[in-house]
Amino acid sequence: MRRAGTNRRRAPIAILTDFGYRDHYVGAMKGVIATIAPQAPVIDITHGIPAQSIIAGAIALRECWRYFPAETIFLSVVDPGVGTARLPIAVETLAGACFVAPDNGLVWLAIEQAGLKRAVELRAQRYRLPKVSSTFHGRDIFAPAAAHLWRGEPLDAMGPRLRTIERLSIGEPVVRGRRLVGMVIYVDGFGNLVTNIGREALARFTSGFPGARVSVRIGRGAPLRIVNAYGDAPIGTPLATFGSFELLEIAVREASAAQFFKASEGTPITVTVNPGLRNG
Amino acid sequence: MRRAGTNRRRAPIAILTDFGYRDHYVGAMKGVIATIAPQAPVIDITHGIPAQSIIAGAIALRECWRYFPAETIFLSVVDPGVGTARLPIAVETLAGACFVAPDNGLVWLAIEQAGLKRAVELRAQRYRLPKVSSTFHGRDIFAPAAAHLWRGEPLDAMGPRLRTIERLSIGEPVVRGRRLVGMVIYVDGFGNLVTNIGREALARFTSGFPGARVSVRIGRGAPLRIVNAYGDAPIGTPLATFGSFELLEIAVREASAAQFFKASEGTPITVTVNPGLRNG
Amino acid sequence: MRRAGTNRRRAPIAILTDFGYRDHYVGAMKGVIATIAPQAPVIDITHGIPAQSIIAGAIALRECWRYFPAETIFLSVVDPGVGTARLPIAVETLAGACFVAPDNGLVWLAIEQAGLKRAVELRAQRYRLPKVSSTFHGRDIFAPAAAHLWRGEPLDAMGPRLRTIERLSIGEPVVRGRRLVGMVIYVDGFGNLVTNIGREALARFTSGFPGARVSVRIGRGAPLRIVNAYGDAPIGTPLATFGSFELLEIAVREASAAQFFKASEGTPITVTVNPGLRNG
Repeated sequence: MRRAGTNRRRAPIAILTDFGYRDHYVGAMKGVIATIAPQAPVIDITHGIPAQSIIAGAIALRECWRYFPAETIFLSVVDPGVGTARLPIAVETLAGACFVAPDNGLVWLAIEQAGLKRAVELRAQRYRLPKVSSTFHGRDIFAPAAAHLWRGEPLDAMGPRLRTIERLSIGEPVVRGRRLVGMVIYVDGFGNLVTNIGREALARFTSGFPGARVSVRIGRGAPLRIVNAYGDAPIGTPLATFGSFELLEIAVREASAAQFFKASEGTPITVTVNPGLRNG
Repeated sequence: MRRAGTNRRRAPIAILTDFGYRDHYVGAMKGVIATIAPQAPVIDITHGIPAQSIIAGAIALRECWRYFPAETIFLSVVDPGVGTARLPIAVETLAGACFVAPDNGLVWLAIEQAGLKRAVELRAQRYRLPKVSSTFHGRDIFAPAAAHLWRGEPLDAMGPRLRTIERLSIGEPVVRGRRLVGMVIYVDGFGNLVTNIGREALARFTSGFPGARVSVRIGRGAPLRIVNAYGDAPIGTPLATFGSFELLEIAVREASAAQFFKASEGTPITVTVNPGLRNG
Repeated sequence: MRRAGTNRRRAPIAILTDFGYRDHYVGAMKGVIATIAPQAPVIDITHGIPAQSIIAGAIALRECWRYFPAETIFLSVVDPGVGTARLPIAVETLAGACFVAPDNGLVWLAIEQAGLKRAVELRAQRYRLPKVSSTFHGRDIFAPAAAHLWRGEPLDAMGPRLRTIERLSIGEPVVRGRRLVGMVIYVDGFGNLVTNIGREALARFTSGFPGARVSVRIGRGAPLRIVNAYGDAPIGTPLATFGSFELLEIAVREASAAQFFKASEGTPITVTVNPGLRNG
């Protein structure tokens, strides 16, 4: 059966969880992997996803998966429904990457980009630990599945095909006259506020107002100009820029925009065009 | 002399400390390992053990050691007595795992399970760094010892045998009439409260009250039912369950039980049987 | 061209950043390395350097670089000026280690010890990712450069030589009569206060006062004796000692000196000699 699988032996297993850095939980998962697939290179993406935040985990995966080797197996566990009816799944993508995760939308944003090829439920007992707890499937189901996949076990041996998997949406910004209204979808560890306003959505919006000047407001804050880099504003000053997510981002140079604006996920962001004033 | 040692070349060195994630301390330990044993796979269990909490480190080790490959070397440093008379030790177990640690009880709970085979004091100068500080034996004594053990140096070359090592107890729950009284022994990063009440202790206790209904109380909180999984309670609601430790655990679904109940290590937990009411 | 480079294939790439543990940023960097140099061993020094604190990163690097294998590549990113005129650089040292970093002083304290051999600006497009963002050069410039260096690409292929790189000073303590005045330069994760007073500076100072007793004061705190180890003071009691940095350090046994003394980077520390009283 081994021959039917993909040879992933050069690519790593990359782990993303909300298990944090205080406990042994991630260590136990790595012990399971080292037992089943001792040669597998293991990379920590992060274990600091805010507890139970499927959306934050989904955005982090979307932002980093494409920087990994093509055959990487992403072992992804943010799992508030552990022990309930939600399915454990493995997904193969057209881009080559595999995702092992609970079926709760966590991997959807990455899979949207990578292209869903096929998905299975992780049901086969022989790819789980002998004893499965009701609270820690990361150790008992997901880590063993990722390790067996890395060894070349075929996806279809893990369980039955699924016709569909859970989806997730971060919402699109909406146009209201001279304003484009989006919101904060991710607050990073520096306190930078990442919005759901992409370069293309902004370009489409502004194309209707040639020559107009663009400003960005968060809540009732003063209007901000869009600059090229964090360093283009004085220290302690807020700014808007297209950051590494390729999304509009509100930052404060060398400080936390989340604290500065008392903002968090869901805070509205407005881009406004002012007629007749050139931007630049 | 190399031949007398165990060949651990496929198993990893797994590190657990309270050094945190802010400083270079763990990095320096890994640099020492990479210098002495460049081929050794190194796995981080966690470095987030609460500072100087030997008991938390001991519980974390006990909960994860058995998920690692049999010949794993556990490099364990929670060391409030660094630089004083407490001995640095290495312990080989019947299960195959080795533990390198300060002799302060940190590794005892794991060794109780793995079976003590022999223990030595890490006294030999040639398995230490040339210069040993009085504040950082993780770098100067423990990391070099683990790396040399991994390379196959025999345990007995490291120093003299010890007849006994420091023990540690997390206490057993006690029966008081219709009540079984235990306590919180570990608070994890999600705020889940892990108690010292195991499945067997509970089964022994309830076997004296056939058909009785069981409820769990923490402090003066309302009685809780024992459910199968976190997801079996509504969001924000407290519950009791047997978690991944195989110990009774108080949790609040998608929130912190430690905050909800203002509880911490040592908080009493009571299991009560109510006559004539069936459980379930 | 490959032949002209150094073969670093046994040494690791060691990463130090202020990217924290919440986001995918470090994961993306590791994905880039795994894509370019899949065989390279990668070691995390820490990603918990306080945000934008070049001085804390510089001290951490200085304290750990010499514990790594000689040919280690240190990928170092604390980069408040990302996207501005500050240069991305790679530096080879006489000791063998390479440093890849923004040119803002971050690597200077380590390079002072390791000996600057040659430095280049990371300008060559073919050693960067195809698309370079203005906010995340760790992923787009520094990680690819480190991975290509590890594969043996010669330093001079990366860009033009630099005559000089940015320096950084942590200041020297100054003598004022019977007092040696320094300051806190680093607060570690335990709350220990590391000063800029080294063993040699203290020995030079006290040599002028033979037989005198030495005491240490922080702010207006009570005078402290210099002891050999943290464990030489009672629990909860402040002490002064030469810690693993080989610098005078103020600690509180099993507690945080930073909280105890409400001290932080820049807080003055005074060593005083009292005539006629022997020390010890």
